[in-house]
This record gives sequence, structure tokens and C-alpha cells, in this order.
Amino acid sequence: MLFAKPLADLIAELERLPGVGPKSAQRLAFHLLKVPLAQTQRLADAIVRARERLCFCSRCQNVSEHEVCEICASARRDEHLVCVVAEARDIAAIERVNEYKGLYHVLHGLLNPMDGVGPEQLRIRELLERLGPDSNVTEVIVATNPTIEGDATALYLAKLLKPLGVRVTRLAHGMPIGGELDYADAATLLSAIEYRREM
Amino acid sequence: MLFAKPLADLIAELERLPGVGPKSAQRLAFHLLKVPLAQTQRLADAIVRARERLCFCSRCQNVSEHEVCEICASARRDEHLVCVVAEARDIAAIERVNEYKGLYHVLHGLLNPMDGVGPEQLRIRELLERLGPDSNVTEVIVATNPTIEGDATALYLAKLLKPLGVRVTRLAHGMPIGGELDYADAATLLSAIEYRREM
Repeated sequence: MLFAKPLADLIAELERLPGVGPKSAQRLAFHLLKVPLAQTQRLADAIVRARERLCFCSRCQNVSEHEVCEICASARRDEHLVCVVAEARDIAAIERVNEYKGLYHVLHGLLNPMDGVGPEQLRIRELLERLGPDSNVTEVIVATNPTIEGDATALYLAKLLKPLGVRVTRLAHGMPIGGELDYADAATLLSAIEYRREM
Repeated sequence: MLFAKPLADLIAELERLPGVGPKSAQRLAFHLLKVPLAQTQRLADAIVRARERLCFCSRCQNVSEHEVCEICASARRDEHLVCVVAEARDIAAIERVNEYKGLYHVLHGLLNPMDGVGPEQLRIRELLERLGPDSNVTEVIVATNPTIEGDATALYLAKLLKPLGVRVTRLAHGMPIGGELDYADAATLLSAIEYRREM
């Protein structure tokens, strides 16, 4: 046995985290043995507490401390707009821009038939419920990543939502600001040309 | 506030881990909110338990469940040989080779005056105690990394230990097996030429 049991257990649990291979799991484990005891205790507590105190918002499926999240509960958000994102962390990315004032909806994944993720595995039913007869939503902005899965999910949603009389839009694709033509990949450049705008 | 408090706390604690930036801390935190509750509980428990149950071996300073570690306590190890390593995880690397049958000594760091790490901060006093008058040790193999700090520490130890009448050796440097001359860095190639052997 290379490692004492409690150490081997810790390494095994760390290895289950995304992006953590056997090597980094060992590094993290040995690190945790060396830092002040209070710090490891705080980490362990934070892990348990996050699970105990957080749930998914009953409206937008965002991570929340309450049954309805802060964004959904806020009176200052525009309830005519709903931005659909794949993951809860995408909300933070958009909020950081400090421009969008509408609501969100988290799908918790993207359509991916190869991995067995169909519409039933995503929070699409909950989105349809929000767009029911007494809804104020006039536009749904699909902000899935410009990947195969993101594109497929966006198309699926557009087909599903347009018959409900709601406007369905998607984030613009094109050259990133500050990017160089020389370094842009062909697909991005193609998008930038296809969606060129009048000046 | 971008994240609910328990989530922000968890992200902050994860960010303190080595090699975990703000982005990966967020990814890990959101991951931990999604996996089965039992798995997060096991991770938190493993962290706490590792700290509770592990200590450093009173002889070789390796991570251990007992006052004397398995390697030091084993009757099958050659007590004439002591291999000095910087970190406890280096022992696992050498044990994996399944060739070395001597004992170990963990320094818990390398000399690094810039970061305020002098001989007093390393477990060198404990090494000297092991090499006292009634010691059976005939050879100390210094297995510190071939870096500036590793080299400095090896030189320091050689100067300190040779007067005690013990043989002090160091791991060979040279071309890694399977490596290509074309891709070898100059320092490695220089070492390989300098330490060339008769065939």
C-alpha cells in the first residue's frame, strides 16, 4: 500500500472531482495535510453547508438559498425577458457584464443524445410552465454556448417556443472584441461575415 | 452579490487550494452541488478524517497512521540506506518503482532563502538524530528534484553529512528513458554528457 488508508481515501474522493486527475488529487491531499487545521475544517464545512443550505430556484432553476432566488424575487428585473442558459454558473458570467436586467432560466445541461441527454433530462418543462397563458414573457434569449450541443439545444427551443407567440433570439456570434482576424478560427470568422452589420 | 453566501463561501475555500483558480473553484463548487449528496458527504468526511487520523512518522517524517510509519516499522527494509526526499509524495513515486528497499527521510521542503526557508525550517535536525553514534546507516541517497532549490539542498546535506562518515549519493541526472535528443533541454543534455558511462 502506497498511502495510509485515510490518505488514500481522501485522494480517491478528490479524484472524483472534474478536472482533477490522480496527480493533482495527490497534490491536493498532501496540501490539505499541511495547511492549518482550521482551514481544512472550513473547507469540509463549506462543502457540507453548501449542500444543506442551497436548492434550485423553483422558477428559474438557479442555485438559491431560498425557494425563489434573489433575481426572480427582485422587483427591479424586467419580467418580459428570460435568458436561457445551460448552467447556473453562466448566470454569473452574464451578471458580471451588468447590462442584462431580465430574468433567467437554467436548463442544467444541453441536448446530447450520445450521452443520453434528451429534452426530458433538461429543465425544459419548467421553462414551458413559465411561458403559460398568464405569462408576461415576450422574449426568450437563448444563451447556450456556440457548440454543437448548444446549437442543437437552441434550435430545439426555438421550434418549441415560437408557436407560443414569444420572440426567440440568440446571442450574437462573431469576432471577440480585441481579437485578431489572423488568429480567429474559420467558424468564428464565417459567423462574423454571415452576421455582418450595417455601419 | 453574484453567488448565494454558502456557494460563495465554498468557492472561496476551494480557491485556497493549490492550482485552483477562481474559474476552477466555481466549476468545482457547481459540480459539488450536482453530484449525489452522499458523495459530497464522503469528500467532506475524508478531508476531516485525513487530518484526524494522520500524523508524521517520528523517524522518517513520512505521513503515517501510527507514530512510526509502515516503512520504518517493516523488518524487510534495509536500514543501512536512507533516501532523503523533499515531500512525502516523493516516497510514493520511488515506491512505485518497486526497486528501492531502504528507508526514507522527508525534509518537508527545500532550502529557499528567498522564501525564508533555511535549514531550521526543514526536518534536517531529525535526519542528523537518525545518523547519531548508534546508527546503522551507511549511505544517504539525496533524491531532491534537479532544480536550483533541490541542488542547493543536496549540496548543503552533502557538506553536513559527509563528516559523519556516511556515504552521500544523489540520483543520476541524464536523458529520460524513451526521450529524444532532439527534444532534450540543454541542461539535461549537458548532465547526460558529463555523467556518461562506459559501455
